[in-house]
Amino acid sequence: MAIIVNLDKRKEQPAKATLKRLLNIVEADLADTNDIILERMHSEVELIPTLARHLIAAGGKRLRPVLTLGAAKLCGYEGDRAKKLAACVEFIHTATLLHDDVVDESDLRRGNETANVLWGNQASVLVGDFLFSRSFQLMVEDGSLEVLAILSNASAVIAEGEVMQLMNVGNTNTTEDSYLQVIASKTAALFAAACEVGAVVAERPKAEAQALESYGRNLGIAFQLVDDALDYSAEQQALGKAIGDDFREGKVTLPILLAFRRGNAEERAFWKRVVEDGDQQDGDLEQALEIIGKHSALEDTIERARHYGAMAKDALGIFEDSEIKESLLEAVDFSIERAF
Amino acid sequence: MAIIVNLDKRKEQPAKATLKRLLNIVEADLADTNDIILERMHSEVELIPTLARHLIAAGGKRLRPVLTLGAAKLCGYEGDRAKKLAACVEFIHTATLLHDDVVDESDLRRGNETANVLWGNQASVLVGDFLFSRSFQLMVEDGSLEVLAILSNASAVIAEGEVMQLMNVGNTNTTEDSYLQVIASKTAALFAAACEVGAVVAERPKAEAQALESYGRNLGIAFQLVDDALDYSAEQQALGKAIGDDFREGKVTLPILLAFRRGNAEERAFWKRVVEDGDQQDGDLEQALEIIGKHSALEDTIERARHYGAMAKDALGIFEDSEIKESLLEAVDFSIERAF
Repeated sequence: MAIIVNLDKRKEQPAKATLKRLLNIVEADLADTNDIILERMHSEVELIPTLARHLIAAGGKRLRPVLTLGAAKLCGYEGDRAKKLAACVEFIHTATLLHDDVVDESDLRRGNETANVLWGNQASVLVGDFLFSRSFQLMVEDGSLEVLAILSNASAVIAEGEVMQLMNVGNTNTTEDSYLQVIASKTAALFAAACEVGAVVAERPKAEAQALESYGRNLGIAFQLVDDALDYSAEQQALGKAIGDDFREGKVTLPILLAFRRGNAEERAFWKRVVEDGDQQDGDLEQALEIIGKHSALEDTIERARHYGAMAKDALGIFEDSEIKESLLEAVDFSIERAF
Repeated sequence: MAIIVNLDKRKEQPAKATLKRLLNIVEADLADTNDIILERMHSEVELIPTLARHLIAAGGKRLRPVLTLGAAKLCGYEGDRAKKLAACVEFIHTATLLHDDVVDESDLRRGNETANVLWGNQASVLVGDFLFSRSFQLMVEDGSLEVLAILSNASAVIAEGEVMQLMNVGNTNTTEDSYLQVIASKTAALFAAACEVGAVVAERPKAEAQALESYGRNLGIAFQLVDDALDYSAEQQALGKAIGDDFREGKVTLPILLAFRRGNAEERAFWKRVVEDGDQQDGDLEQALEIIGKHSALEDTIERARHYGAMAKDALGIFEDSEIKESLLEAVDFSIERAF
């Protein structure tokens, strides 16, 4: 049975938004940030750079440091501090990824074997701790207590979000509010902090820092909503990407949450078996996709993402029009349109 | 076969040193620190305080925060900052314990079931991250970049030490230098930082901060050496305490390291089997204790501890005699004499 869930119903859609313009603008700064990252993940304990390199050098979009650099640029900042703080943000992100993979017992990330598979959970936990500590060392070198407060608060909120998510695993009664609180904490808090520190280093008025915090937070929520939709996307599957990770882990993300609440008794019994009891068999993912499709749960997850995306864009309204502003607005569209 | 390894050959020894005097002096401050700890481990995510309370409220000696409070008192400090920073130090320590138990796959700590057994590895990793973040939030509230530098550096060194230890597991060729580097990093760095921040809050001359850093570092090394000896101590076993944890985990601590280097071919083959190959059978711990005893490896581990203890005491030489100084010197004796 082929399941085709087409997320895109607007055939007249214009060219897709990309991150290209933003990446072009911050290109030189990002190269410096990458150098700082490579330099500062060094340790005489060889396993640390080896393992960190696996995750950090493997690439990924570097979205969070790019946001720090872009936010600083939007505020007219020309100095070097943003580069180092962008590296801090990436270190915090990498540390959480290492710990997430241990917590989720993941085998693959972006198609590569995860560090916990290659070097064991133990090394992943400890190297995560090292990168987290290293991030704080970098902040201390920067010397701003305001930045330290923003990023240490974000770190505590991220950990709270991860614990909340763990407690919601397998709970089909998870409310949308509770789900939103999880993604606001585990994902959006770092997006928000990454953007806010860009304004702080530029020493701009509080209103601009708040605007960028709001931009980052809403963008982060939209980003995670789309991520959670992509985990059930037939297009992703057609591209050869793995889907169904959240399903197998019993995570009650919005697609399941909506399908459960909109479902009939038989469907709810299905969700209870596969998610609550963790009793999954061959063909269950396909059935999940079918039920999710029947209730338009993916389309509506993306609709929710559009809502937060719209708030992210409006948050930037107080800034003068400029190319960097346009590129940050485009980053919002990119985050949502990557679903198609 | 009963194995009696008597660590104490000096029968004429005076009354044992205790922590009582130090604990009396800091009693009121420590009560405030405990209040801060209980208040600041709070989170609306219930699992966080529940799990943290299991480890933090279960007690233990609170040795590290006591050292911060004692060091501050030695420097004549009378304010409140040391109490909050003592709580930071305990949070860092607790975070590392939570992660250690995951890394070591421990079932018991101080005779209680470990958090990872009760709530799972996942919760232990994430609540550790939370406590670590919370520690940095507390430091940021304190507002001293110098304190932040000391404790963030210590955190990175601790993580490096833990990774080093992981890489040495099962390696009978571990040198004493390498072993010392591990314990200086994983244990002594936090003892050193705990003491140093006591001098920093008192705004005393650099020499006093350095003296307390040295006191803490050497005390920490002595403390860990004794811990590593205790894991093979017949007296501990007679007291009903678990021994042999390091042995089962294949950790090459000084007692094994000395026994291996002093051993004959047959004994080395034994260590290779049980530690390198991890092939352990009933009776192996008893045989390990016998070989360790034959080579006086426990006595000499304690002798090494005395060496670092002596350095710790001499480090305090620049301070005027006082009751708090006496009690800090006694803490060194206590750390070593608890082996008997």
